[in-house]
Amino acid sequence: MASMRALQKKAPGPGLELCEVEIPQIRPDQVLVKIEMAAICGTDLHIYNWDTWSANRVSPPVTIGHEFAGRIVEVGENVTGLAEGTLVTAEGHFTCGRCYYCRTGQGHICDDVKILGVDVDGIFAEYAAIDAENIWPLPDGFDPAIGAVHDPLGNAVHSAYVHGLTGKNVIVTGCGPIGLFCIALARQAGARAVFASDMNEYRIELAKQLGADHVINGGSEDLETVVKPATGIGADVLLEMSGSSQALASGLRSLRKGGAASLLGIFSSNVSIDLDAVIFNQLTLYGINGRRMFDTWFQMQAALEAGLDITPVITHRFKFEEYDEAMALMNSGRCGKVLLVP
Amino acid sequence: MASMRALQKKAPGPGLELCEVEIPQIRPDQVLVKIEMAAICGTDLHIYNWDTWSANRVSPPVTIGHEFAGRIVEVGENVTGLAEGTLVTAEGHFTCGRCYYCRTGQGHICDDVKILGVDVDGIFAEYAAIDAENIWPLPDGFDPAIGAVHDPLGNAVHSAYVHGLTGKNVIVTGCGPIGLFCIALARQAGARAVFASDMNEYRIELAKQLGADHVINGGSEDLETVVKPATGIGADVLLEMSGSSQALASGLRSLRKGGAASLLGIFSSNVSIDLDAVIFNQLTLYGINGRRMFDTWFQMQAALEAGLDITPVITHRFKFEEYDEAMALMNSGRCGKVLLVP
Amino acid sequence: MASMRALQKKAPGPGLELCEVEIPQIRPDQVLVKIEMAAICGTDLHIYNWDTWSANRVSPPVTIGHEFAGRIVEVGENVTGLAEGTLVTAEGHFTCGRCYYCRTGQGHICDDVKILGVDVDGIFAEYAAIDAENIWPLPDGFDPAIGAVHDPLGNAVHSAYVHGLTGKNVIVTGCGPIGLFCIALARQAGARAVFASDMNEYRIELAKQLGADHVINGGSEDLETVVKPATGIGADVLLEMSGSSQALASGLRSLRKGGAASLLGIFSSNVSIDLDAVIFNQLTLYGINGRRMFDTWFQMQAALEAGLDITPVITHRFKFEEYDEAMALMNSGRCGKVLLVP
Amino acid sequence: MASMRALQKKAPGPGLELCEVEIPQIRPDQVLVKIEMAAICGTDLHIYNWDTWSANRVSPPVTIGHEFAGRIVEVGENVTGLAEGTLVTAEGHFTCGRCYYCRTGQGHICDDVKILGVDVDGIFAEYAAIDAENIWPLPDGFDPAIGAVHDPLGNAVHSAYVHGLTGKNVIVTGCGPIGLFCIALARQAGARAVFASDMNEYRIELAKQLGADHVINGGSEDLETVVKPATGIGADVLLEMSGSSQALASGLRSLRKGGAASLLGIFSSNVSIDLDAVIFNQLTLYGINGRRMFDTWFQMQAALEAGLDITPVITHRFKFEEYDEAMALMNSGRCGKVLLVP
Repeated sequence: MASMRALQKKAPGPGLELCEVEIPQIRPDQVLVKIEMAAICGTDLHIYNWDTWSANRVSPPVTIGHEFAGRIVEVGENVTGLAEGTLVTAEGHFTCGRCYYCRTGQGHICDDVKILGVDVDGIFAEYAAIDAENIWPLPDGFDPAIGAVHDPLGNAVHSAYVHGLTGKNVIVTGCGPIGLFCIALARQAGARAVFASDMNEYRIELAKQLGADHVINGGSEDLETVVKPATGIGADVLLEMSGSSQALASGLRSLRKGGAASLLGIFSSNVSIDLDAVIFNQLTLYGINGRRMFDTWFQMQAALEAGLDITPVITHRFKFEEYDEAMALMNSGRCGKVLLVP
Repeated sequence: MASMRALQKKAPGPGLELCEVEIPQIRPDQVLVKIEMAAICGTDLHIYNWDTWSANRVSPPVTIGHEFAGRIVEVGENVTGLAEGTLVTAEGHFTCGRCYYCRTGQGHICDDVKILGVDVDGIFAEYAAIDAENIWPLPDGFDPAIGAVHDPLGNAVHSAYVHGLTGKNVIVTGCGPIGLFCIALARQAGARAVFASDMNEYRIELAKQLGADHVINGGSEDLETVVKPATGIGADVLLEMSGSSQALASGLRSLRKGGAASLLGIFSSNVSIDLDAVIFNQLTLYGINGRRMFDTWFQMQAALEAGLDITPVITHRFKFEEYDEAMALMNSGRCGKVLLVP
Repeated sequence: MASMRALQKKAPGPGLELCEVEIPQIRPDQVLVKIEMAAICGTDLHIYNWDTWSANRVSPPVTIGHEFAGRIVEVGENVTGLAEGTLVTAEGHFTCGRCYYCRTGQGHICDDVKILGVDVDGIFAEYAAIDAENIWPLPDGFDPAIGAVHDPLGNAVHSAYVHGLTGKNVIVTGCGPIGLFCIALARQAGARAVFASDMNEYRIELAKQLGADHVINGGSEDLETVVKPATGIGADVLLEMSGSSQALASGLRSLRKGGAASLLGIFSSNVSIDLDAVIFNQLTLYGINGRRMFDTWFQMQAALEAGLDITPVITHRFKFEEYDEAMALMNSGRCGKVLLVP
Repeated sequence: MASMRALQKKAPGPGLELCEVEIPQIRPDQVLVKIEMAAICGTDLHIYNWDTWSANRVSPPVTIGHEFAGRIVEVGENVTGLAEGTLVTAEGHFTCGRCYYCRTGQGHICDDVKILGVDVDGIFAEYAAIDAENIWPLPDGFDPAIGAVHDPLGNAVHSAYVHGLTGKNVIVTGCGPIGLFCIALARQAGARAVFASDMNEYRIELAKQLGADHVINGGSEDLETVVKPATGIGADVLLEMSGSSQALASGLRSLRKGGAASLLGIFSSNVSIDLDAVIFNQLTLYGINGRRMFDTWFQMQAALEAGLDITPVITHRFKFEEYDEAMALMNSGRCGKVLLVP
């Protein structure tokens, strides 16, 4: 049996280990993918840091990672429509196919989901076995770095496209990779103005590069005092990508009456919120989970084909063996999207 | 100048006074209405009790009250389409007609609204001057008691009709008059099941009368443990009419993934809420303010014409001079809707 | 190999033949169903009559029929979640699972659909092999007659639920089984008024039984002159189930401005339509195909659990061997839904 | 009484007359506007040509024209919020304010509308009296030529924004001014691809200038054979601006299943349409009338503030006295939008 390198959480506790493990055997409904490019998600960082969520959710040993682009090198016998040599990425949520949600086009909130790199071995490895129905083929010559960030770009598309953005005043709170993608999406969709806030100057610079019209450092400036004069009555749309209760509060205060917010950033604990303002101002709050399967993926494909440029979001690339350095950088926040190259 | 009796807040502080005042003069765009039936809103009770909100918002002296049915006795010279003798009620929000909201069919969140019985003299009086464009004519022979509760019924219609209710599992938290109306509306719309919760046994009885399938005393029973088995995966819709953060929390926990909530009950202070559950469960929260003008009113008219029966909600009638008794009853919570007869 | 009786189109041309054929072998992802009740669709009648559509679409020999209830008697080895002895019906459209539509919750318009009883052997037989993912389990003790009409009831639900019907004035043109189901659905959803039209007195009687408020014989009465006075401005919703261009024209004329129509009835040739009226009156026309998979099925289940009574629609039952008589009755139009009992 | 020049239809029959007439007196709720720039609508051309529609609809004598920009020179005594010297344009539909439509944010389909330049004297004149509530103020320094085409630009916004256009494949049939505006709007909104068709080479050139990706001469090329390969499954959205039944048919054939069309172009007689394809393909057809008041106007303002460039649509300017020449040019079709300068 041939072997490969894989970044595994071998046992409970912080850190990862670069191991030599067997190349996975595919099931008849899977394909084997040779990973060309991986990307580090906040979830991977949580597992690396071994926070409370990870300790409760993850059962070592497991190869982590779920954002990737790679090439199909083997096709299961029951698989149709996929061929060796195709560059692909994949949706990392494996759904049951039988629950209410799966049967009504809402597989992204499947009642019995398994997650790549969390519940099953992931893609921080040279090879990965992936269910064929989760595979998303990429065009010939597609940049694997862009392929590797489809998962978080999909989060941004899902959050942003809940709203029509054309001609709208749009706030993005939190300029991590998903927030930055949101800025690019709002720009592409013909937003009237894009306001972005973060407390990290590195990310504030990236927000400007992505095309935000107004960039606010939430640590020293007040979002509302920027948004209200620039819009007259407040913004139409808030895309909350920070998971900061302060950012949420300032974002909601900066919306016009009748405005709406997508919530994607995770808060990790209860949030104290002025719901009476939500009520009196007739606001709508949308909780957003993952990516619609595969509506969001088709929308993402169309946005990219229409020329969406997200390359500035990708700021660093590390080799697999430099994983500690990559994770340290991510913990520092002085980065956009960080890639891992096998 | 002829005079009339009116219930006024004469000066800051608790209580009201039954005064003899001049019958109001109408402007050319107003009608004069002889009040046949009034109803007491929670807002009136707040002003009677003189809580913090009232102290900040209301400038005595003012005749309070905004829920009524009455007959037109005088028509302003610029008014067309209204005639003396017609039974009417009215929308109590007077809008500016010029702001973004007024010009886009969202007058209910007008930037410069004036409220009947708060900003201008209200209808706890024998006569009231009302802007013609706010008048809602009622059919010949219509029950004035039902006419007098159009305003809160409209709140219920606005909250409920944000969602399609047909075939849905619907939770109503808070069985005051608006919550009770919601139960009736969900029944009429063909809900699959209606779950209602309150902590007040009097209102729990009313909820049963209105047709709730499952009635939960939130003080001793857990909503989620009733809703989940009866629905399999949780309810589709939550109509939050209580303004209780506990009720909201149990209501949100009882929703299925992808479910939605209308929030109408006011909380009076920040609410600590599990937004991560809103996000992971892809929930949508709609803040609801007043009644759409006049979409909600036409919907209400249609619901009544289709046979909506809300008579059990109206539990008590008092004469104007018994206002202290009526307010005491409302403070006790042992009532549905309470009417005042001039 | 055991044999069974099946109604087959053996060769091009009118009629059917009751044959003795082998009981079908199931694939690993199928179940074998013993048919307890079948229902005749208009499609079956077209194939029986061998009209132009059938001659172009159907390749004999084939067992026809796709509306049924039956019991699982064998479960394929790859099937999970289904058990022998369960009463079931099924969606008769087998989808590819890979096209844009299948991957975005729109399998009902799959680019590579196969239809039960048209492209593969159907259920006018004692047994049928059905793909497990198309199976819709029914509760213990469920009436097989109601189970057998889920497919057309789903057409009605799909057509009707495009619109909110609560408080609406609803027109149903065409009172065949699907139109009759629409009447029941509109009633259950709290429509303000239901107007139904047909030219067949037998079906007009059924429309009354199902609860239509106004029933119009399109041959002698004008729909618009009934609808306009009863609604003031015209109806909100038209459910076009007749496939008659005259009925469509009168239905569209009877809508209020801003109204909407679902089109399900097939016209068989181009229709001359007053599109300028559609434009000036800001109407919306929805083409409706089949049933959303499986959103419509869950909605149907909820409507039935909420008490929808469609039993009056089912007017006749025949034994398999009486198929000529059943088809003759359907050709006469003097029937609602006609069942075939194996 | 001061006098002014005005282009009037003096009596039934073709042509116009440049007359000397009294400057209109404003009512207390109106403003007097000095016209700086007028634009010719297809409606004006119909009245000039005196076609069947005009003969039935217009009662001479009347000053025609309704597209303009001008400056307020007098403000009625009941008007608030408008000042002399402000550059403005206006919505030309005067609504009753009392019907179902006016009271539900749908004034654009008011039951008792009066149209500027048709039912009341229009703006092909040096001055015009306009209802204050129809006035749309323009920013200081705004180009009067762009102000003068707000009405047809609003038609385009209304038609286009029924759909989300971001990432969509969009067809525009008919490249008159409104079709050209649609191309610009689709581009701004981040459409994946824009397909435009016309039979007039002059307009085909303009369509390219506005940014259409694929331009089809409907006289010699087949839209479907261009759209299908470029999109894989067909376009998402059709914006039908031509009023040609052939263009409509080819547009509908070029849509993907589940696609949608806005219909704005007037056909002048019944259209023979393949409704069965609409049904089987689950298409939706939206009839579009005028501009939503004033939702569409705010959307238009935002699109312009976001940088929408429609200047190439405006191809010719004539002096009032050259009206015959201007109308002849419009009859030839070798133009985009044609302006008249007082």
